Amino acid sequence: MSVDILELIKTRRSIRKYKTAPVSEEEINKILEAGRWAPSADNSQPWRFIVLRSQEVRKKLADTLTWGRFLSQAPMGIAVVVNPRASNHPVEDGAAATQNMLLEAHFRHRHRSPGRNSPEDKERTRRADLHR
Amino acid sequence: MSVDILELIKTRRSIRKYKTAPVSEEEINKILEAGRWAPSADNSQPWRFIVLRSQEVRKKLADTLTWGRFLSQAPMGIAVVVNPRASNHPVEDGAAATQNMLLEAHFRHRHRSPGRNSPEDKERTRRADLHR
Repeated sequence: MSVDILELIKTRRSIRKYKTAPVSEEEINKILEAGRWAPSADNSQPWRFIVLRSQEVRKKLADTLTWGRFLSQAPMGIAVVVNPRASNHPVEDGAAATQNMLLEAHFRHRHRSPGRNSPEDKERTRRADLHR
Repeated sequence: MSVDILELIKTRRSIRKYKTAPVSEEEINKILEAGRWAPSADNSQPWRFIVLRSQEVRKKLADTLTWGRFLSQAPMGIAVVVNPRASNHPVEDGAAATQNMLLEAHFRHRHRSPGRNSPEDKERTRRADLHR
Protein backbone atom coordinates (compact mmCIF):
# COMPACT_ATOMS: atom_id res chain seq x y z
CA MET A 1 0.00 0.00 0.00
CA SER A 2 1.51 3.27 -1.04
CA VAL A 3 0.58 6.87 -1.61
CA ASP A 4 1.96 10.26 -2.57
CA ILE A 5 2.44 12.02 0.76
CA LEU A 6 1.30 15.44 -0.44
CA GLU A 7 -1.81 13.93 -2.01
CA LEU A 8 -2.51 12.17 1.31
CA ILE A 9 -2.02 15.39 3.26
CA LYS A 10 -4.33 17.30 0.91
CA THR A 11 -7.17 14.78 0.94
CA ARG A 12 -7.38 14.45 4.74
CA ARG A 13 -10.52 15.95 6.19
CA SER A 14 -11.71 16.73 9.71
CA ILE A 15 -14.71 14.41 9.87
CA ARG A 16 -17.50 14.97 12.38
CA LYS A 17 -19.90 12.24 11.32
CA TYR A 18 -18.95 8.63 11.88
CA LYS A 19 -19.77 5.10 10.90
CA THR A 20 -20.74 2.78 13.72
CA ALA A 21 -18.50 -0.12 12.63
CA PRO A 22 -15.79 -0.84 15.20
CA VAL A 23 -12.17 -0.01 14.43
CA SER A 24 -10.00 -3.11 14.55
CA GLU A 25 -7.23 -3.67 17.08
CA GLU A 26 -4.75 -3.84 14.20
CA GLU A 27 -5.84 -0.48 12.81
CA ILE A 28 -5.68 1.16 16.23
CA ASN A 29 -2.18 -0.21 16.81
CA LYS A 30 -0.93 1.11 13.47
CA ILE A 31 -2.36 4.54 14.26
CA LEU A 32 -0.68 4.54 17.68
CA GLU A 33 2.57 3.46 16.07
CA ALA A 34 2.43 6.46 13.74
CA GLY A 35 2.02 8.72 16.78
CA ARG A 36 4.91 7.11 18.66
CA TRP A 37 7.31 7.92 15.81
CA ALA A 38 6.70 11.66 15.85
CA PRO A 39 9.63 13.93 16.63
CA SER A 40 9.72 15.48 20.11
CA ALA A 41 12.02 17.88 21.95
CA ASP A 42 15.17 15.95 22.91
CA ASN A 43 13.27 12.82 21.86
CA SER A 44 11.40 13.12 25.16
CA GLN A 45 8.22 11.47 23.82
CA PRO A 46 6.14 13.21 26.51
CA TRP A 47 2.87 11.73 25.26
CA ARG A 48 0.51 9.02 26.35
CA PHE A 49 -2.27 7.84 24.06
CA ILE A 50 -5.46 6.66 25.71
CA VAL A 51 -7.69 4.55 23.49
CA LEU A 52 -11.29 5.34 24.36
CA ARG A 53 -13.38 2.34 23.47
CA SER A 54 -16.15 2.69 26.05
CA GLN A 55 -19.08 4.69 24.76
CA GLU A 56 -19.92 5.64 28.34
CA VAL A 57 -16.44 7.07 28.94
CA ARG A 58 -16.49 8.93 25.62
CA LYS A 59 -19.88 10.38 26.45
CA LYS A 60 -18.69 11.60 29.87
CA LEU A 61 -15.54 13.08 28.39
CA ALA A 62 -17.42 14.73 25.54
CA ASP A 63 -19.71 16.42 28.07
CA THR A 64 -16.70 18.19 29.58
CA LEU A 65 -15.32 19.46 26.28
CA THR A 66 -15.90 22.84 24.66
CA TRP A 67 -14.93 21.34 21.34
CA GLY A 68 -15.04 17.63 20.69
CA ARG A 69 -18.61 16.78 21.71
CA PHE A 70 -18.74 14.59 18.62
CA LEU A 71 -16.44 12.20 20.49
CA SER A 72 -19.50 10.51 21.98
CA GLN A 73 -20.79 9.63 18.50
CA ALA A 74 -17.61 8.05 17.13
CA PRO A 75 -16.98 4.30 17.49
CA MET A 76 -13.73 5.05 19.35
CA GLY A 77 -11.39 7.90 20.14
CA ILE A 78 -7.77 8.48 21.09
CA ALA A 79 -6.96 10.98 23.82
CA VAL A 80 -3.50 12.48 23.43
CA VAL A 81 -2.13 13.64 26.78
CA VAL A 82 1.29 15.17 27.38
CA ASN A 83 3.44 15.58 30.46
CA PRO A 84 4.42 19.29 30.60
CA ARG A 85 7.43 18.46 32.75
CA ALA A 86 8.80 15.79 30.41
CA SER A 87 9.53 18.07 27.44
CA ASN A 88 10.50 21.65 26.64
CA HIS A 89 7.78 21.68 24.00
CA PRO A 90 5.03 19.29 25.17
CA VAL A 91 2.20 20.89 23.18
CA GLU A 92 4.15 20.88 19.90
CA ASP A 93 5.21 17.29 20.55
CA GLY A 94 1.65 16.13 21.19
CA ALA A 95 0.40 17.97 18.11
CA ALA A 96 3.05 16.37 15.89
CA ALA A 97 2.08 12.93 17.19
CA THR A 98 -1.57 13.75 16.57
CA GLN A 99 -0.89 14.85 13.00
CA ASN A 100 0.96 11.59 12.34
CA MET A 101 -2.02 9.63 13.68
CA LEU A 102 -4.48 11.61 11.56
CA LEU A 103 -2.46 10.89 8.43
CA GLU A 104 -2.15 7.20 9.26
CA ALA A 105 -5.88 6.95 10.01
CA HIS A 106 -6.71 8.71 6.73
CA PHE A 107 -4.33 6.42 4.84
CA ARG A 108 -5.94 3.32 6.41
CA HIS A 109 -9.43 4.53 5.68
CA ARG A 110 -8.61 5.11 2.03
CA HIS A 111 -7.04 1.71 1.61
CA ARG A 112 -9.72 -0.15 3.44
CA SER A 113 -11.87 -2.47 1.44
CA PRO A 114 -14.68 -2.61 0.67
CA GLY A 115 -16.46 0.70 0.74
CA ARG A 116 -13.58 3.02 0.03
CA ASN A 117 -15.55 4.92 -2.53
CA SER A 118 -18.99 4.02 -1.35
CA PRO A 119 -21.80 6.56 -1.81
CA GLU A 120 -21.74 7.00 1.98
CA ASP A 121 -18.05 7.92 1.89
CA LYS A 122 -18.56 10.36 -0.95
CA GLU A 123 -21.44 12.03 0.82
CA ARG A 124 -19.34 12.28 3.96
CA THR A 125 -16.46 13.83 2.06
CA ARG A 126 -18.83 16.29 0.41
CA ARG A 127 -20.23 17.37 3.76
CA ALA A 128 -16.77 17.69 5.26
CA ASP A 129 -15.76 19.89 2.35
CA LEU A 130 -18.69 22.16 3.05
CA HIS A 131 -17.43 22.62 6.61
CA ARG A 132 -13.77 23.15 5.93
CA MET B 1 6.09 8.76 -6.49
CA SER B 2 4.46 6.90 -3.68
CA VAL B 3 5.19 5.55 -0.24
CA ASP B 4 3.70 3.73 2.72
CA ILE B 5 2.83 6.51 5.14
CA LEU B 6 3.85 4.60 8.28
CA GLU B 7 7.17 3.65 6.71
CA LEU B 8 7.73 7.30 5.81
CA ILE B 9 6.87 8.42 9.34
CA LYS B 10 9.24 5.85 10.84
CA THR B 11 12.22 6.64 8.64
CA ARG B 12 12.14 10.41 9.18
CA ARG B 13 15.08 11.67 11.23
CA SER B 14 15.92 14.97 12.89
CA ILE B 15 19.05 15.85 10.91
CA ARG B 16 21.58 18.34 12.25
CA LYS B 17 24.24 18.09 9.54
CA TYR B 18 23.47 19.42 6.10
CA LYS B 19 24.56 19.34 2.51
CA THR B 20 25.45 22.68 0.97
CA ALA B 21 23.51 22.17 -2.26
CA PRO B 22 20.64 24.65 -2.59
CA VAL B 23 17.04 23.50 -2.25
CA SER B 24 15.08 24.21 -5.40
CA GLU B 25 12.16 26.59 -5.58
CA GLU B 26 9.93 23.70 -6.60
CA GLU B 27 10.91 21.64 -3.56
CA ILE B 28 10.38 24.57 -1.21
CA ASN B 29 6.94 25.23 -2.68
CA LYS B 30 5.87 21.59 -2.26
CA ILE B 31 7.01 21.65 1.37
CA LEU B 32 5.07 24.86 2.01
CA GLU B 33 2.04 23.36 0.32
CA ALA B 34 2.18 20.40 2.73
CA GLY B 35 2.20 22.84 5.64
CA ARG B 36 -0.71 24.86 4.29
CA TRP B 37 -2.92 21.77 4.24
CA ALA B 38 -2.56 20.97 7.92
CA PRO B 39 -5.68 21.01 10.06
CA SER B 40 -6.15 24.01 12.36
CA ALA B 41 -8.74 25.10 14.92
CA ASP B 42 -11.82 26.27 13.02
CA ASN B 43 -9.65 26.11 9.89
CA SER B 44 -8.08 29.36 11.08
CA GLN B 45 -4.70 28.64 9.45
CA PRO B 46 -2.95 30.98 11.91
CA TRP B 47 0.49 30.33 10.42
CA ARG B 48 2.93 32.18 8.23
CA PHE B 49 5.94 30.39 6.80
CA ILE B 50 9.06 32.47 6.28
CA VAL B 51 11.59 30.95 3.90
CA LEU B 52 15.05 31.83 5.15
CA ARG B 53 17.40 31.81 2.19
CA SER B 54 19.92 34.40 3.35
CA GLN B 55 22.81 32.86 5.22
CA GLU B 56 23.30 36.15 7.04
CA VAL B 57 19.71 36.19 8.29
CA ARG B 58 19.90 32.54 9.33
CA LYS B 59 23.11 33.21 11.20
CA LYS B 60 21.58 36.17 13.07
CA LEU B 61 18.46 34.20 13.92
CA ALA B 62 20.46 31.17 15.01
CA ASP B 63 22.43 33.36 17.42
CA THR B 64 19.22 34.23 19.25
CA LEU B 65 18.00 30.64 19.61
CA THR B 66 18.52 28.31 22.56
CA TRP B 67 17.91 25.38 20.28
CA GLY B 68 18.31 25.61 16.55
CA ARG B 69 21.83 27.05 16.23
CA PHE B 70 22.35 24.55 13.40
CA LEU B 71 20.05 26.78 11.32
CA SER B 72 23.08 28.82 10.27
CA GLN B 73 24.71 25.75 8.71
CA ALA B 74 21.73 24.58 6.63
CA PRO B 75 21.33 25.76 3.01
CA MET B 76 17.90 27.18 3.92
CA GLY B 77 15.33 27.14 6.68
CA ILE B 78 11.61 27.70 7.17
CA ALA B 79 10.44 29.71 10.17
CA VAL B 80 6.92 28.77 11.26
CA VAL B 81 5.23 31.66 13.04
CA VAL B 82 1.69 31.68 14.39
CA ASN B 83 -0.72 34.43 15.33
CA PRO B 84 -1.94 33.64 18.87
CA ARG B 85 -5.08 35.72 18.32
CA ALA B 86 -6.07 33.99 15.09
CA SER B 87 -6.71 30.54 16.57
CA ASN B 88 -7.82 28.87 19.79
CA HIS B 89 -4.90 26.47 19.41
CA PRO B 90 -2.13 28.33 17.57
CA VAL B 91 0.74 26.20 18.90
CA GLU B 92 -0.93 22.91 17.99
CA ASP B 93 -1.80 24.30 14.56
CA GLY B 94 1.75 25.41 13.87
CA ALA B 95 3.13 22.08 15.05
CA ALA B 96 0.76 20.13 12.79
CA ALA B 97 1.84 22.25 9.81
CA THR B 98 5.48 21.69 10.75
CA GLN B 99 5.01 17.93 10.95
CA ASN B 100 3.43 17.94 7.49
CA MET B 101 6.39 19.88 6.13
CA LEU B 102 8.91 17.53 7.75
CA LEU B 103 7.19 14.53 6.18
CA GLU B 104 7.04 16.18 2.76
CA ALA B 105 10.73 17.18 3.00
CA HIS B 106 11.67 13.65 4.03
CA PHE B 107 9.62 12.21 1.18
CA ARG B 108 11.30 14.55 -1.33
CA HIS B 109 14.76 13.78 -0.05
CA ARG B 110 14.20 10.05 -0.40
CA HIS B 111 12.87 10.32 -3.92
CA ARG B 112 15.49 12.70 -5.08
CA SER B 113 17.91 11.42 -7.64
CA PRO B 114 20.77 10.83 -7.69
CA GLY B 115 22.34 10.22 -4.31
CA ARG B 116 19.39 8.85 -2.44
CA ASN B 117 21.43 6.05 -0.97
CA SER B 118 24.83 7.64 -1.31
CA PRO B 119 27.51 6.77 1.28
CA GLU B 120 27.13 10.32 2.56
CA ASP B 121 23.43 9.82 3.12
CA LYS B 122 23.97 6.51 4.88
CA GLU B 123 26.59 8.02 7.15
CA ARG B 124 24.28 10.89 7.95
CA THR B 125 21.44 8.54 8.78
CA ARG B 126 23.74 6.49 10.99
CA ARG B 127 24.82 9.58 12.91
CA ALA B 128 21.25 10.77 13.26
CA ASP B 129 20.29 7.39 14.67
CA LEU B 130 23.02 7.69 17.28
CA HIS B 131 21.48 10.96 18.44
CA ARG B 132 17.86 9.95 18.51
